[in-house]
Amino acid sequence: MLGSKTFEAWTAETLNAFERALDDLVPAAAPAGLGEAMRYAVLGGGKRLRPLLVLATSETVSGNALAAMRSACAVELIHAYSLVHDDMPCMDDDVLRRGKPTTHVQFGEAQAMLAGDAMQALAFEVLTPEEGIPPALQARLCALLARAAGHAGMAGGQAIDLASIGKQLDEATLRDMHRRKTGLLLQASVTMGAACGQCGEQALQQLEIYGAAIGLAFQVVDDILDVTQDSAVLGKTAGKDQDANKPTYVSVLGLDPARQLADELCAEAKAALAASGLADTRLLELLADSVVERDS
Amino acid sequence: MLGSKTFEAWTAETLNAFERALDDLVPAAAPAGLGEAMRYAVLGGGKRLRPLLVLATSETVSGNALAAMRSACAVELIHAYSLVHDDMPCMDDDVLRRGKPTTHVQFGEAQAMLAGDAMQALAFEVLTPEEGIPPALQARLCALLARAAGHAGMAGGQAIDLASIGKQLDEATLRDMHRRKTGLLLQASVTMGAACGQCGEQALQQLEIYGAAIGLAFQVVDDILDVTQDSAVLGKTAGKDQDANKPTYVSVLGLDPARQLADELCAEAKAALAASGLADTRLLELLADSVVERDS
Repeated sequence: MLGSKTFEAWTAETLNAFERALDDLVPAAAPAGLGEAMRYAVLGGGKRLRPLLVLATSETVSGNALAAMRSACAVELIHAYSLVHDDMPCMDDDVLRRGKPTTHVQFGEAQAMLAGDAMQALAFEVLTPEEGIPPALQARLCALLARAAGHAGMAGGQAIDLASIGKQLDEATLRDMHRRKTGLLLQASVTMGAACGQCGEQALQQLEIYGAAIGLAFQVVDDILDVTQDSAVLGKTAGKDQDANKPTYVSVLGLDPARQLADELCAEAKAALAASGLADTRLLELLADSVVERDS
Repeated sequence: MLGSKTFEAWTAETLNAFERALDDLVPAAAPAGLGEAMRYAVLGGGKRLRPLLVLATSETVSGNALAAMRSACAVELIHAYSLVHDDMPCMDDDVLRRGKPTTHVQFGEAQAMLAGDAMQALAFEVLTPEEGIPPALQARLCALLARAAGHAGMAGGQAIDLASIGKQLDEATLRDMHRRKTGLLLQASVTMGAACGQCGEQALQQLEIYGAAIGLAFQVVDDILDVTQDSAVLGKTAGKDQDANKPTYVSVLGLDPARQLADELCAEAKAALAASGLADTRLLELLADSVVERDS
């Protein structure tokens, strides 16, 4: 828990433990360079927002620490694999990610596709260790992650994204696309963290609202940064959604209303925490702020 | 169980039930054509050897029928997704599969990649239903599947395959590649089926040997058929391994020794069944025969 620590100290300490856990779990020894490509794609970079959400939520409900850390690694593996595939020439065809060449540029397309595939499998492997996590919790975590990652979630959102290039979308359709593409995995980070501990029905419902609001706010801010920041700050190609003629919150709503929407979603997330009945939600409040106030 | 049925009748009945279950589980309604691509890739075609192994093993140990059917669908989803990705231009660049255009030819590369990704997630989704399968069994099935599909299994084998094009491999390396690439998922089909029922340590060990032998025999026969059959019979491009200068059991051992190896593996599989102490292993014996005697 936060206790007397600052949010910055908690984040630094938590990320340090997370990076060590992830480093232990992603195999250097996988055959024929596959491990190297997987490690390149997921280690050493990224904001790690999803792991922080898992771990902060689990701490908030006094969750099983191993289950929370494994869940944090699993969601980040799913997120990182989606970036590897999304960056490939047949998708977004991007060459820069987290300030480095994208995985397919570094290792070739075939190895990048396999690394992404193996990272998705690894996510479910790390959720199902021989011991240390009760089997019923393992099953629950796999269920939550699979649904957030699959056809109704992230992969479905990417399919909508793919089909929407060059089209005018209204705000409702744009919201649906982003809810699936990024929102549900961010929300799952919260619900998986909650599953690691004891959490009543009311608290769980409010945490789901919190997760959904944060998930959407994250995307709105992403769209804002895509037009207001340059590639060096973002560590990825800036302005590419605009260049690709992809609908964004900025293109649909305009810049100032998009900023206002992000603030409203942040307030909605905090209101859910206040209504959750949970004893100490400061960590999750500060995480909500950090999502909206980030500049990269 | 087989009872007084012929093997052909059991297979027809079992496949009928399997195809209905799979049809119910693969969503037509997934967004933006994604469901259509997923259904195209996995429904209506294929030998369904993995599902038959799951279901026959589960029947042999009087397993939970829902868990077995869900496991059968899950392993076939993993197998089918791997074919979709394997056929893509950056991998084998193949245009024909199960007698139809490959998924990327039909739907485009981006949609094919997403469909494969969503099929992998769906495999873990179908293993973790809200009810009907005890959570501890769900966790065990996810664990077995994730390990067979991932870096140490199928994806790792594909990475070795990728790195081996144009190289001379000795038989040991070739065996290791195939054990991972196809063997471990076939073996997992057996161990997942076994996990659905009550199965003592001795029986489980022998079933693992059976599964490993069947898995390898399947690949040896595949390599034989690749050079002895034409594309129309196989429903996929014949001779492509040879054309791609890929090492195969036929190229490493020669045709007749490869046939002999397949027979030896079949005998090894049956010996394991005999040593298992299980009451009635006729179904699994007949399945072993069908793997080695197939002509497509």
